[in-house]
Amino acid sequence: MHLAAFLFTPGSHSSGWRHPDAIPECDMDFAQYVRIAQAAERGKLDTIFFQDTVAVNGSAALDGVSRFRPKQGRQAYLEPTTLLAALATVTSRIGLIATATTTYNEPYNIARRFASIDHISGGRAGWNLVTSQIEDEAGNFGADHHMQHALRYERAEEFYDVVAGLWDSFEDGALIRDKASGDYIDPAKLHFLDHRGRHFTVRGPLNMARCPQGRPIVSQAGSSDAGMELAARTADLVFTAQSDMSEAQAFAADLKARAARHGRDPAHVKVMPGLMTIIGRTEAEAQQKYEALQRLLDDANAMRLLARLCGDLDIHSLPPDAPLPELPPSNAAKARQRHLMEKAKREDLSIIQVARYLGTSLGHQLLVGTPARIADSMEAWLREGACDGFTLMFPYYPTPLEDFVALVVPELQRRGLFRTEYRGHTLREHLGIPVPPNRFAAD
Amino acid sequence: MHLAAFLFTPGSHSSGWRHPDAIPECDMDFAQYVRIAQAAERGKLDTIFFQDTVAVNGSAALDGVSRFRPKQGRQAYLEPTTLLAALATVTSRIGLIATATTTYNEPYNIARRFASIDHISGGRAGWNLVTSQIEDEAGNFGADHHMQHALRYERAEEFYDVVAGLWDSFEDGALIRDKASGDYIDPAKLHFLDHRGRHFTVRGPLNMARCPQGRPIVSQAGSSDAGMELAARTADLVFTAQSDMSEAQAFAADLKARAARHGRDPAHVKVMPGLMTIIGRTEAEAQQKYEALQRLLDDANAMRLLARLCGDLDIHSLPPDAPLPELPPSNAAKARQRHLMEKAKREDLSIIQVARYLGTSLGHQLLVGTPARIADSMEAWLREGACDGFTLMFPYYPTPLEDFVALVVPELQRRGLFRTEYRGHTLREHLGIPVPPNRFAAD
Repeated sequence: MHLAAFLFTPGSHSSGWRHPDAIPECDMDFAQYVRIAQAAERGKLDTIFFQDTVAVNGSAALDGVSRFRPKQGRQAYLEPTTLLAALATVTSRIGLIATATTTYNEPYNIARRFASIDHISGGRAGWNLVTSQIEDEAGNFGADHHMQHALRYERAEEFYDVVAGLWDSFEDGALIRDKASGDYIDPAKLHFLDHRGRHFTVRGPLNMARCPQGRPIVSQAGSSDAGMELAARTADLVFTAQSDMSEAQAFAADLKARAARHGRDPAHVKVMPGLMTIIGRTEAEAQQKYEALQRLLDDANAMRLLARLCGDLDIHSLPPDAPLPELPPSNAAKARQRHLMEKAKREDLSIIQVARYLGTSLGHQLLVGTPARIADSMEAWLREGACDGFTLMFPYYPTPLEDFVALVVPELQRRGLFRTEYRGHTLREHLGIPVPPNRFAAD
Repeated sequence: MHLAAFLFTPGSHSSGWRHPDAIPECDMDFAQYVRIAQAAERGKLDTIFFQDTVAVNGSAALDGVSRFRPKQGRQAYLEPTTLLAALATVTSRIGLIATATTTYNEPYNIARRFASIDHISGGRAGWNLVTSQIEDEAGNFGADHHMQHALRYERAEEFYDVVAGLWDSFEDGALIRDKASGDYIDPAKLHFLDHRGRHFTVRGPLNMARCPQGRPIVSQAGSSDAGMELAARTADLVFTAQSDMSEAQAFAADLKARAARHGRDPAHVKVMPGLMTIIGRTEAEAQQKYEALQRLLDDANAMRLLARLCGDLDIHSLPPDAPLPELPPSNAAKARQRHLMEKAKREDLSIIQVARYLGTSLGHQLLVGTPARIADSMEAWLREGACDGFTLMFPYYPTPLEDFVALVVPELQRRGLFRTEYRGHTLREHLGIPVPPNRFAAD
């Protein structure tokens, strides 16, 4: 089983930061990030994982001061690539993944930064490739709206090709640095990319020796058809959002079949749905903890999370106890819309119930119970082919992560489902995904 | 006196990496960067400083494999912003400056990364704002050539305005994180930029609390008229390249007068010309060290450095012993062309002698001598108003930097010219430059 810790400061629960144990200052305080990353490494997790948005959430929606949401927690946080680099020096084994959007970056710059983190960390870097979905971002990059979904994915496909190609610029051993002859480099081992596409023209080479991992790990979270195709062709890890086992089984089977069609070994594409756990030493304690958290939930905040996924439909104009209607097509996350509609139908949820589900776990699976009960469910998902592991989400930081490491990890280890020590040093080794060959290297 | 260490791995001397003491692996090996940064901090230097180019140097000049220069050292190195973030955790006081180009980045992304480094380092970050000069870079960003010099500077001016404006998005104290009321943020202290200019349209706010330094330090190295105007209006530090004291005095006086015309305190704009030192315990030992280095110099490499500054003139077609001719207008570094022509005229230098000067110290001042003699010259420059300090350059790493710290720093300290301990914790405090007010804050 593979485990990632999703570090979405100050918490994945929209009001979790108000919990008495929460340290919401973890959004901007590097020392708190160190504490969290080291706890995850103590738990022998495969990797930590930072989401990213290049805007203050909600800033595009309205005009003037009222655009800000005083009760919304995730307003500011450290920039993930600089944060990963800094965390590389205070950890030694755990993987380091961060999101960077293909919509508002240049591939040369992204290829360099993740390669640099891979060198600094000794082979632990990962790039979570996304397309920008949240409209707030467009206004920070000269646009009123994002380019359309299909075009965003077309750009993302090409962006990946350029980045992966640049990562092969130097073959291993290209830098010879021979003081006697004065030869610094072996020109036969340094390669131009000369990419010319619709979105990018990039000559290369990248000014960076080949990475310890060959290439950093690439992860993806898209679950639309375009997103799954991109993931099947390019991703090593797939973060996804199924809260129902049969839905997850279907997703994993579909994704792995697509990977095989792209000529890849499906075992080298790891599917890791999100999972939030509320852990008690007894079921009653877990339930109590859950209820205490839910009392903090702000319905207005939760409704705004839902509204962002509703396109042109003004969800606030409908009675909150009405069933969730069919959501109109939107340029935002298509797969998340579908997931919510299916879940609402399956569980007969009203609008406000769906909003609260989003507000609690960002729409991911929630397990409330004892370590044994949580491990039972995780084990079943793994054994039934619903996933290769989980992306762990936490309502706030740092104690829920520390609880998972102290209580659930040992239970998984006892069952032989999870490592008791790191065996390798790189993220690829943790995941069991081999170093890719350099496309330019002679056999 | 202020001192910066210019870390241009594997060395600022074009063949310095071949010296027996050189560790050219410092270009890609993070552990070597740690050793270098910690040596600079042991010397109580104000800051370390990383140059950057978003290309392999020389890659645009020719076709195919022959484009690569096997004997050229600076082919690959860690990406500076991720490197700064990582070095922040293994140092505690020294400033951390890196170059990022305004030509091939987006201001929102740059504002975030340097602000993030400022938070991670507790107020030690600096951004060296440049426009791209080296044509090799254009091909990695969809262009055959850079935009013209004047347009690059126009973009740089606007880029700075956007970045500085975004850094004021949050006032101090905007993040209240009040668990009782549920108010995370004080909306009155969070500000939109709503910038609409020729090159950029950026709404803001930046998703980042205000920096420990208010804003990171901004440095600049342009010495053309456009470059000096930009520096006079925006820069806290100016890295420059005068090797003649009267030339340096004229530059400093001109720049500070321009700063005053922009309504700034000229004492808050620090002028720090480059300086390479070759240090011996005796004059003879220093001269010996210098000659040993010069025996390594590769004339073909040195000529290529010169050729890059010659625009359409094919410098290789002229006899190397001929005097340096008038260089034709070029889209590259205009001020460096002028500096070379003036130096060649003043010192009656031939083409190959100018090339060797570039190959030795990248066209910066070179002092060869005992610590006392070097300190004499540095003291004279400081006392005569030629500078506020120096940007120290090293032919290779790490021993020349370690020698400077062990031999010249104590001599400067004995003379009362340089600090014996850090007094402040931030780069602004080291430089004596106050925290700027937030433009949006009410008085």
